[in-house]
Amino acid sequence: MSVAVVNFAEKFAKIDKLHAYKLVARMNDYDFKLVRMRREFIWHSHPETDEVFMVIDGELQIDLPDEMLCLRKGEMVVIPKGTDHKPSCREECRILLIEPAGTLNTGNVGGALTDTAIEWI
Amino acid sequence: MSVAVVNFAEKFAKIDKLHAYKLVARMNDYDFKLVRMRREFIWHSHPETDEVFMVIDGELQIDLPDEMLCLRKGEMVVIPKGTDHKPSCREECRILLIEPAGTLNTGNVGGALTDTAIEWI
Repeated sequence: MSVAVVNFAEKFAKIDKLHAYKLVARMNDYDFKLVRMRREFIWHSHPETDEVFMVIDGELQIDLPDEMLCLRKGEMVVIPKGTDHKPSCREECRILLIEPAGTLNTGNVGGALTDTAIEWI
Repeated sequence: MSVAVVNFAEKFAKIDKLHAYKLVARMNDYDFKLVRMRREFIWHSHPETDEVFMVIDGELQIDLPDEMLCLRKGEMVVIPKGTDHKPSCREECRILLIEPAGTLNTGNVGGALTDTAIEWI
């Protein structure tokens, strides 16, 4: 048996593309995914699940229907299931996402920004 | 609706005792708990669930049956369900634990070190 320690900085160094979600760990049926982000994403929700955003580096804005969150390095938030949200950042932000395996980045909306080619790194 | 951003440093500043697990977030039925640790813990396992350790500050050693892990700030590991493990640290280490609500810190062993008085901060 070998249990792998995940070093976030080392994993991010292996990600050469923005907006490509990469799997780094699985706990039961939950995925831990890293993404380098620099864009205004779309409004969407996840009707079946809460979703965790944790900022590893940079700043992430998350618009909600009636407030705007700003997360910095060392901060996390749980977006409740069914809650419309729009993540965005002007400068690159490095994020850890935690959510059930199979959760789509575009949630209930789908479309061209949906990433279905998530790989382990 | 208000969604709370969790700042780990600010939360740790509110924890005045070592080894007192504090809830900071819940995602579906999973708890996010912070703990300030400085001890050699006991060997135990969680027969029903994987468990995530993430080091927010310091260094954490986790002994497994046939290897020894060392986690530093910015690192995490998933301990597979049913795997015996013994976390320990000589200097204070600040840890984020992620596991299903109700998971006991002492797992299948129980005993005097079991913390059943976990509070939200």
